Amino acid sequence: MRRIEIAKVLAQPALDDTITVMGWVRAFRGNRFIALNDGSTPHTLQIVLDAEKIDETIIKKIKFHACLSITGQLVASQGAGQAVEILAESIEVLGECNPEDGYMMQPKVQTMEFLRTNAHFRMRTNTFSSVFRLRHAIAFAVHKFYNDRGFFYIHTPIITGSDAEGAGEMFHVTTLDTNSPPRLEDGSVDYTQDFFGKATNLTVSGQLQGEIAALALGKIYTFGPTFRAENSNTPRHLAEFWMIEPEVAFNDIVDNMDLAEEFTKYLINYCLENHLADLELLDKRLAEEQNALPKDKRRAMGLIEQLRFVVDNAFERITYTEAVEILMKSKPYKEKKFEFPVEWGSDLQSEHERYLVEKEFKKPVIVRNYPKEIKAFYMRLNDDDKTVAAMDVLFPGIGEVIGGSQREDRHDLLVERIKAIGIAEEELWWYLQLRKFGGAPHAGFGLGFERMVQFITGMSNIRDVIAFPRTPGNAEF
Amino acid sequence: MRRIEIAKVLAQPALDDTITVMGWVRAFRGNRFIALNDGSTPHTLQIVLDAEKIDETIIKKIKFHACLSITGQLVASQGAGQAVEILAESIEVLGECNPEDGYMMQPKVQTMEFLRTNAHFRMRTNTFSSVFRLRHAIAFAVHKFYNDRGFFYIHTPIITGSDAEGAGEMFHVTTLDTNSPPRLEDGSVDYTQDFFGKATNLTVSGQLQGEIAALALGKIYTFGPTFRAENSNTPRHLAEFWMIEPEVAFNDIVDNMDLAEEFTKYLINYCLENHLADLELLDKRLAEEQNALPKDKRRAMGLIEQLRFVVDNAFERITYTEAVEILMKSKPYKEKKFEFPVEWGSDLQSEHERYLVEKEFKKPVIVRNYPKEIKAFYMRLNDDDKTVAAMDVLFPGIGEVIGGSQREDRHDLLVERIKAIGIAEEELWWYLQLRKFGGAPHAGFGLGFERMVQFITGMSNIRDVIAFPRTPGNAEF
Repeated sequence: MRRIEIAKVLAQPALDDTITVMGWVRAFRGNRFIALNDGSTPHTLQIVLDAEKIDETIIKKIKFHACLSITGQLVASQGAGQAVEILAESIEVLGECNPEDGYMMQPKVQTMEFLRTNAHFRMRTNTFSSVFRLRHAIAFAVHKFYNDRGFFYIHTPIITGSDAEGAGEMFHVTTLDTNSPPRLEDGSVDYTQDFFGKATNLTVSGQLQGEIAALALGKIYTFGPTFRAENSNTPRHLAEFWMIEPEVAFNDIVDNMDLAEEFTKYLINYCLENHLADLELLDKRLAEEQNALPKDKRRAMGLIEQLRFVVDNAFERITYTEAVEILMKSKPYKEKKFEFPVEWGSDLQSEHERYLVEKEFKKPVIVRNYPKEIKAFYMRLNDDDKTVAAMDVLFPGIGEVIGGSQREDRHDLLVERIKAIGIAEEELWWYLQLRKFGGAPHAGFGLGFERMVQFITGMSNIRDVIAFPRTPGNAEF
Repeated sequence: MRRIEIAKVLAQPALDDTITVMGWVRAFRGNRFIALNDGSTPHTLQIVLDAEKIDETIIKKIKFHACLSITGQLVASQGAGQAVEILAESIEVLGECNPEDGYMMQPKVQTMEFLRTNAHFRMRTNTFSSVFRLRHAIAFAVHKFYNDRGFFYIHTPIITGSDAEGAGEMFHVTTLDTNSPPRLEDGSVDYTQDFFGKATNLTVSGQLQGEIAALALGKIYTFGPTFRAENSNTPRHLAEFWMIEPEVAFNDIVDNMDLAEEFTKYLINYCLENHLADLELLDKRLAEEQNALPKDKRRAMGLIEQLRFVVDNAFERITYTEAVEILMKSKPYKEKKFEFPVEWGSDLQSEHERYLVEKEFKKPVIVRNYPKEIKAFYMRLNDDDKTVAAMDVLFPGIGEVIGGSQREDRHDLLVERIKAIGIAEEELWWYLQLRKFGGAPHAGFGLGFERMVQFITGMSNIRDVIAFPRTPGNAEF
């Protein structure tokens, strides 16, 4: 008999039909009621078992996370809590799951750290199966958003010969024998013998290559893995994470802000409209986590409440200069509670961003027009000659989710900037040529995918929104 | 004035409106007719220019691939070849493009190799803009196909600590100083001081981690970059390419074949239904390329003809044993024209696969149940104890596009296989535990994305279907 997925059984119950379902045991109560889940939905299907009909040796194997195939009649449930249930006629054990054989998962709340070290089973928990269904939904919404608007998805290279992207420390990629690499006469490693004939790294951003595509196809986006070899062991950093980078020919910084706001709201709305049951489960989880905290450490809003608040309100848009002014008038500034200095020319620190978002405006904030000295070389110089058309989108709780800019499209100004920061022109020959031949104004940004998944799922550690996190000292699985 | 994209202008022409368009010059005839393209469509928009209205210095800058902003009235075209055109009232040059400044692209057919070395401009050509719009369409169709069917998209790790995947040579990832890495007492490199505390590589497949997700969420797929450090300088190989790997709990090898056939047909149909203009352009290109070949080297069908043929016919399904029998009865075998031996136990070579697909069946062929010795350790042993439930999907012209299998879900048999091929059990501790605790039958496959893009676009070199190809000696851009 062909099995039916539990999501379908619950959505369109064919009452009185005899059906087969397969899945993992989430609970088994009183030797009679199995809660079965097959991953297709956060809900479980109740199976009612008549101990006289089912062999005792099988009943003994019905344990937490054992995998079963069950055939029986689907009927309206007699009990509260579910609309339908299956009266089991036969049960087959597809995969046993015995604590005495060493199974480490238990039907109780286990620490996040424990679940991370057992990432091969954590997706079987309520929390993580919801997180990863939502992660899928957000990824799909990314593609749908851009496809519906005529953007083209570009795969930018993962291995790059350029180290001019300037966004942080990079991982080195090589096929040379690390123990005894070929060497030049001066003793240095001979990278001409490496796979690509030169030293290569893992990309930190697909932006520069994305600009190539935008200046031909008009509107493009990337969605791929990016890497930072930084020794940041924090709940906000991963060595390997996914980034979405739209790039649009003919857009200026205002179009860019509009796109960022429309895009992030769309992702949130998509989840609210299509995955509310998963969000409700995570909303409850977060509320319990918050209840364990002292009152002054708790979030101002519940998960779903905050998501609705963000989509229902316009993002605040201010300049960097205005941000500095607001901060200088703030209570924590006057009371010297900020750890880092506030002064025109210094970058905004996390504590400053949080003040703006969580205290001053109580909603997402887009800060634009930063001092050129603290931003990347490719950002377009404003007419004041002091600031660049950069923008950061700051979200409550997680801080910066988006960084972007209008790009410097004037060849000579870009050459000047590159020289000033000491990058060789040859390194960026093609990037400069894009300005020399058929260039156009254009703008884009990068959204840290995991940050967005964190915001939507309410998970406080970024390691809990990616299936197999890569962090300093950890490349397990 | 807000610009309108050319795709929209052509699809819903608001006749007599004054509008602004922006894009790149594809042609400029008789100082009067500009063919403008902005990437949103393969079609160009005709701009009619009245030399008396437009400044001469501007007209001089209207060159191949220069970027223009044009405002004017949209009217029904007087000429043949287009329905509408714009009567230019003003023209702004956004980006000049002068051959005398070194612009290398020319309005004539240029070699593929030349365009590869100028990949930062090749997307501005008819051929490549169509290829990359189709690449986007196929990628979107992948996500839509799986999302519509309740699969969840999983990001499997790019950096992996495991080298047990066994699919070929790997790239090494490190942050150690290659010139003088830290060493142990015995002189070997001390990888405990590397970023992840051990030696790491770039993934060759997300399958093993995908199985983790499938055994919790039921139906999943991956779509990410994979890597092969093989010195294969051929039109069929890339060092960095994208792969799609669905994995489904409770599926057997027959379900797996059904999924592979439904999936590949869906991708082709999606392009036929949504991007016919791009396909028509590439169909014409291919026909011209074919005409330059001697008759016996030409394809049997045109591009679109072949795409329709593939979606309209059931794939042939045979066993490996049947394939060998067919080959042994074949003319080239009898005439000793095959380079490689045909005998039960040897892997099928490209020449054999091509015979089956192009001569014997003249359509896609799925070969299954290969000898266990020539297939990967994780494939499920059949009851004959000689073959495994493996399958390859072979396509006309490009050969293998899909390789997959039902996975060995029996713990003890898997341990036996791992030992037999010399992998340490500890290497795969979590993979083995998936069989020990709540395991289930499951199956999946990998589709080489670029191979599929090749098939749909008719491009003969795989380097021409990825924006920035990575091959031995080449990591430019």
